[in-house]
Amino acid sequence: MSDAIHDGPEADVTLVREELFSLCRRVLMRHGFSEPHVEAVSDALVAAEMDGSRSHGLYRLLGFIDTLKNGAVVPDAEPVVEDAAPSVVKVDANGGFSPYAFRQSVPALVTKAKASGIAILAVNHCVHGTALWVEIERLTREGLVAIACNPTQSYMAPHGGRAPLLGTNPIAFGWPRLNADPYVFDFATSAIARGDIELYRRQGKEMPLGWGVGRDGNPTQEPGEVLDHGAMLPFGEHKGSALAIMIELIAGPLIGDMLSVESSEHDQGRGSLPYHGELIIAMDPARITGSAAPQHMLRSERLFELVQQQGARLSSQRRYQARRRHHEQGVTLSRALYEDILRLTT
Amino acid sequence: MSDAIHDGPEADVTLVREELFSLCRRVLMRHGFSEPHVEAVSDALVAAEMDGSRSHGLYRLLGFIDTLKNGAVVPDAEPVVEDAAPSVVKVDANGGFSPYAFRQSVPALVTKAKASGIAILAVNHCVHGTALWVEIERLTREGLVAIACNPTQSYMAPHGGRAPLLGTNPIAFGWPRLNADPYVFDFATSAIARGDIELYRRQGKEMPLGWGVGRDGNPTQEPGEVLDHGAMLPFGEHKGSALAIMIELIAGPLIGDMLSVESSEHDQGRGSLPYHGELIIAMDPARITGSAAPQHMLRSERLFELVQQQGARLSSQRRYQARRRHHEQGVTLSRALYEDILRLTT
Repeated sequence: MSDAIHDGPEADVTLVREELFSLCRRVLMRHGFSEPHVEAVSDALVAAEMDGSRSHGLYRLLGFIDTLKNGAVVPDAEPVVEDAAPSVVKVDANGGFSPYAFRQSVPALVTKAKASGIAILAVNHCVHGTALWVEIERLTREGLVAIACNPTQSYMAPHGGRAPLLGTNPIAFGWPRLNADPYVFDFATSAIARGDIELYRRQGKEMPLGWGVGRDGNPTQEPGEVLDHGAMLPFGEHKGSALAIMIELIAGPLIGDMLSVESSEHDQGRGSLPYHGELIIAMDPARITGSAAPQHMLRSERLFELVQQQGARLSSQRRYQARRRHHEQGVTLSRALYEDILRLTT
Repeated sequence: MSDAIHDGPEADVTLVREELFSLCRRVLMRHGFSEPHVEAVSDALVAAEMDGSRSHGLYRLLGFIDTLKNGAVVPDAEPVVEDAAPSVVKVDANGGFSPYAFRQSVPALVTKAKASGIAILAVNHCVHGTALWVEIERLTREGLVAIACNPTQSYMAPHGGRAPLLGTNPIAFGWPRLNADPYVFDFATSAIARGDIELYRRQGKEMPLGWGVGRDGNPTQEPGEVLDHGAMLPFGEHKGSALAIMIELIAGPLIGDMLSVESSEHDQGRGSLPYHGELIIAMDPARITGSAAPQHMLRSERLFELVQQQGARLSSQRRYQARRRHHEQGVTLSRALYEDILRLTT
């Protein structure tokens, strides 16, 4: 194997960006993914790992390969981009992972948003497992304001309910800034990420109240009870629940794709990454306010300054800090994860 | 006066829809609003009152007339609709209340959304005080899926902050249904409406924790401390806070209009209703999924059914129930409110 390994304390492994990328590539190529999928998925996973997101970083390779072994993703799917309407691009991922489909359809989305002021990209029939903020950032680099969201699988009860129905339905937003990293947020509409509940279970710890209900529909602090018999809960009570329902609808039936409950049925208990659609909306400030756009966009700098002046944190700042640190120092993976991934290269 | 009055228990006053409408009209005409403003504002306020929303119903007339007396709204403003881009309609409300500007620009928005698949309506330079769901419902009647949002004034601290900066920034969503009232939600991104905190103050009660902070930036249960010296808090911690910031940006600088902090400065402490912009996004299912649209839209019925089957409530159902009840029985206003409004007709 060609990756240079630097053994850290407790035998953890520190890799620089190129090494992470090469490791990803080897795993995906070994399992028969076509070159554009290898490229696009590796880019997305390494970007997340560099940003300090363990859950959406190289760890995801394990789930990706499981999903492949389940027959739940097409490793060489060719996305088909369709010019569906003046402000609508659709891309049929044909059962492949989403990053390649996204990459193939971005130019058409950018063109339409810049021509019309606003445009939709509907990614259909994809398997989704990468972070939305990576896609959002790509669009802010074009000077566009963007919103992305997708259903997942039935993990969460609606507010006031007791059984899994809604997905953890993430929503992400991006706002380009002149001489700064874009303002980006990306969060699940569940009270907490599913991975965090899994962590509590592995550590045998009780969770805070409000994250989930047990089989009887009553609040519980037992992670296993939520994951195996109960349901997660939305963030922000009825408001977060309403947003999760909105995402089910606009990134599901509106674009001719699955609700979380349909995606769960499609999975037939295999535990694969969710198969469904994704909705991206891109807006062009220059097409909306014309030559005054740069001046209006700068007004937002005052808002960001005032947020930070009072000691609040801007979404995504921690990610950018991690990114800079990891560019300098590399990323440290646990020995266990590193070996799990290495095993997938043989 | 011509309104038929039925004295209820405790001398409260019950009015049928036409009486509410005529009362609104008399107040607005008496104060010199032009006929289209009288019409559009009355429609919006009566719709909210009929739906059981005290805060956005006829009670608002008091604030509307105060705002007029402050010189903070133009009673005969003529909105100017601009075809700004293939998927962008802009309407300059020219300092008037928003309902007339909205009404004038809806046909262009509908045409563009149906031609392009998605379109924006930017309402600029308006005074906003009516409920977003009324506008959203108007668009669902055209078969469109719609999202609306606007900043307000600096009432709320960002999550982790301590001072007023963000607005209570409402967001509303609507989804048309075949043989049922549309699925609509409309909520502030603050933990609780400002009016509810005012109610606690009037009643001399302590509020639950989590609604606001005092002048020192620490959590308080004293309503007066929050309203006069402190700040409201967002719903759902950092997630609600991020959404409120998104709304500041997309219904502010993106459409060339004010942030909440700018709207507060513009008000110069007069306590008028907020002057700012509003963003509406409309999407046409038929343009996105073509002839399969009706069949896809019907899939959402299963989601609504499953939500209700587990005992959860669909947003807006309470409003529709109130609407039907009030159509049959009329709306009861408190004697005090009724007399306050009557005073504005003389």
